[in-house]
Amino acid sequence: MVVSVRELPTPALLLDLDVLEENIARQASRARRFGVSLRPHIKTHKCIEVARLQRSAGARGITVSTLAEARVFADHGFDDILWAFPLIPSRVGEVRELAERIRLTVVVDSPAAIDALEAAGAEVAVWIKVDCGYHRAGVDPAGDEGLRLGERLAASRSLRLEGVLTHAGHAYECRGGGGLQEIAEEERAAVAGFARRLRDEGMAVDHVSVGSTPTMSAVTDLTGVTEMRPGNYTFHDYTQTVIGSAGVADCALTVLSTVVSSRPVTGTSEGWSVVDAGGLSLSKDSGPTGCAPTMGRIYADYDAARLDEHRMLTSLSQEHGVTTGAMAVGERVRILPNHSCMAAACFDRYHVVRGGGVVDLWPIHRQR
Amino acid sequence: MVVSVRELPTPALLLDLDVLEENIARQASRARRFGVSLRPHIKTHKCIEVARLQRSAGARGITVSTLAEARVFADHGFDDILWAFPLIPSRVGEVRELAERIRLTVVVDSPAAIDALEAAGAEVAVWIKVDCGYHRAGVDPAGDEGLRLGERLAASRSLRLEGVLTHAGHAYECRGGGGLQEIAEEERAAVAGFARRLRDEGMAVDHVSVGSTPTMSAVTDLTGVTEMRPGNYTFHDYTQTVIGSAGVADCALTVLSTVVSSRPVTGTSEGWSVVDAGGLSLSKDSGPTGCAPTMGRIYADYDAARLDEHRMLTSLSQEHGVTTGAMAVGERVRILPNHSCMAAACFDRYHVVRGGGVVDLWPIHRQR
Repeated sequence: MVVSVRELPTPALLLDLDVLEENIARQASRARRFGVSLRPHIKTHKCIEVARLQRSAGARGITVSTLAEARVFADHGFDDILWAFPLIPSRVGEVRELAERIRLTVVVDSPAAIDALEAAGAEVAVWIKVDCGYHRAGVDPAGDEGLRLGERLAASRSLRLEGVLTHAGHAYECRGGGGLQEIAEEERAAVAGFARRLRDEGMAVDHVSVGSTPTMSAVTDLTGVTEMRPGNYTFHDYTQTVIGSAGVADCALTVLSTVVSSRPVTGTSEGWSVVDAGGLSLSKDSGPTGCAPTMGRIYADYDAARLDEHRMLTSLSQEHGVTTGAMAVGERVRILPNHSCMAAACFDRYHVVRGGGVVDLWPIHRQR
Repeated sequence: MVVSVRELPTPALLLDLDVLEENIARQASRARRFGVSLRPHIKTHKCIEVARLQRSAGARGITVSTLAEARVFADHGFDDILWAFPLIPSRVGEVRELAERIRLTVVVDSPAAIDALEAAGAEVAVWIKVDCGYHRAGVDPAGDEGLRLGERLAASRSLRLEGVLTHAGHAYECRGGGGLQEIAEEERAAVAGFARRLRDEGMAVDHVSVGSTPTMSAVTDLTGVTEMRPGNYTFHDYTQTVIGSAGVADCALTVLSTVVSSRPVTGTSEGWSVVDAGGLSLSKDSGPTGCAPTMGRIYADYDAARLDEHRMLTSLSQEHGVTTGAMAVGERVRILPNHSCMAAACFDRYHVVRGGGVVDLWPIHRQR
């Protein structure tokens, strides 16, 4: 029996199946158009059922951010996994074990990481991480540090240099679509150029990988690239709408919440409400910088793919969300999170919704 | 066999058992000194073993923030539970069921919440929530709204008016201990005064409850109060050290993390590092406002109860934490979270530590 969304206990995490399927199909089609593989980052959803939809649409392999994610997906038949996080030296034993079960690829940007892998005797594929301007992890693609790492890997008896990757996280500073195409080109040029430098030194580089949902929404050229790794595109969120990489109608993940306290200020139209979605339902991600601050946006009404211009979340404590405007206690509101990856990691399961009814429950594998 | 902390895979959530026991004993002693009951808020730790220590030290009953927490603790023999969150109308069926198993108390601040409880036929103890100046939920203790709620409860056939409560969340704006005593007195006066007004109207009010870790650290008078409900005191965190309600040596919860990428800036002492503790290990709680912003503080060295003045976390993405200073890849750092309740909810278990060794693993019941 299909339960109506209107009868669900709150807070509940809703996943709109129509929008999810559209998002998955659109990105798969984009990858085909550019002639590159799609290796989606599953840290966004941590969900076997979503990854299966991505695979059915043509995704080859997956990207994970933790070894816990890698193990869960390996247990469910995903056998080509990229751990796109700088190798954690204390976990090389787990890498060695997992690499014996599946095709596992790890990422390095330092000699110390290579030392740790070799000391553990891990036989594993390795990609070198390049910094394309985000300035988080990764080697300078124009410097010598990356070439020295390549040489060490090429000479290793247990490790196999197979690829290079980058992530243009600085695309999250774009607003309204402006600048996205330029950053996508920086991302492409950095990693494709570094691959060329390694090849010029006689090293084989089979995989050249880029990825972020914002850059992949705007990219026009992927020459020299073999795969893309966006993740957030499955759900999108308020931040993506501000960046300009998606519209509100492209957002698949929302939190259904109830007004539990209403505080009108007598004699004024002011006041506030408390809803049952706080930092453990939405995360405390403060969302896009430089636009009106909000801890989460409220939809104009349940069915509208349109945000309320006046009511929004102004602060979150652990389980309480405070909104502008005094609403009626018992009123149900649908909230668009600032950051869907972080919101999904708050819950144990998705209520999968189609046509106003809950058609399935999908577990979220958020174990650490 | 005791595993050394220095051998643990990271990220790992460390709980210092000595500090935990001291924090629990100190708060229990404070409650005894004031002649009030201690009903600790377990949303901080979500851990049966910690709650048992609190009970052994004299705590009577517990406070929870969700029905999921209430059910887990009820399943483990805790039979006097206050759900200190404004009643969620869509969950009255669960309230009715749980109230048949244990002594459950719910909280209201609106007629709509009473309507929902009565419509569901829930037979349950009810407390009225009072706003003592935090301006989140709760009725004005000097207004008529609360008296009307009291009258409705006193006339109800299924509900029992048994108490009043408040929470001085605005104490979190204090710095260096200044103002805490004044807010503690506001908290006491608001709820004790409201209890008196109900009694003056002929209603019995057995329980008069206050609670926040900052106010309970500074309070000097609890006249008219019957219980305190602090929660964070079990662990404390960086925010409490800024408020002035605890010192760094009183913080029991830390995240053990490893440097995974090091980015010196050539020719300077500048640069940054990436550690394996991001928003899903520390939460994205931005910490205390009005002091130097940090997403998490790093200890000067593992054993020192002293924070590094120069190295700290400047930004967090999902699994990455970016720090000031280029450290060596593989170096292990211990991080003091901005908000321990939120950090604990990121993990599945505590590594319980004493004398540099892991002496136990305690599950964190973070299901929603």
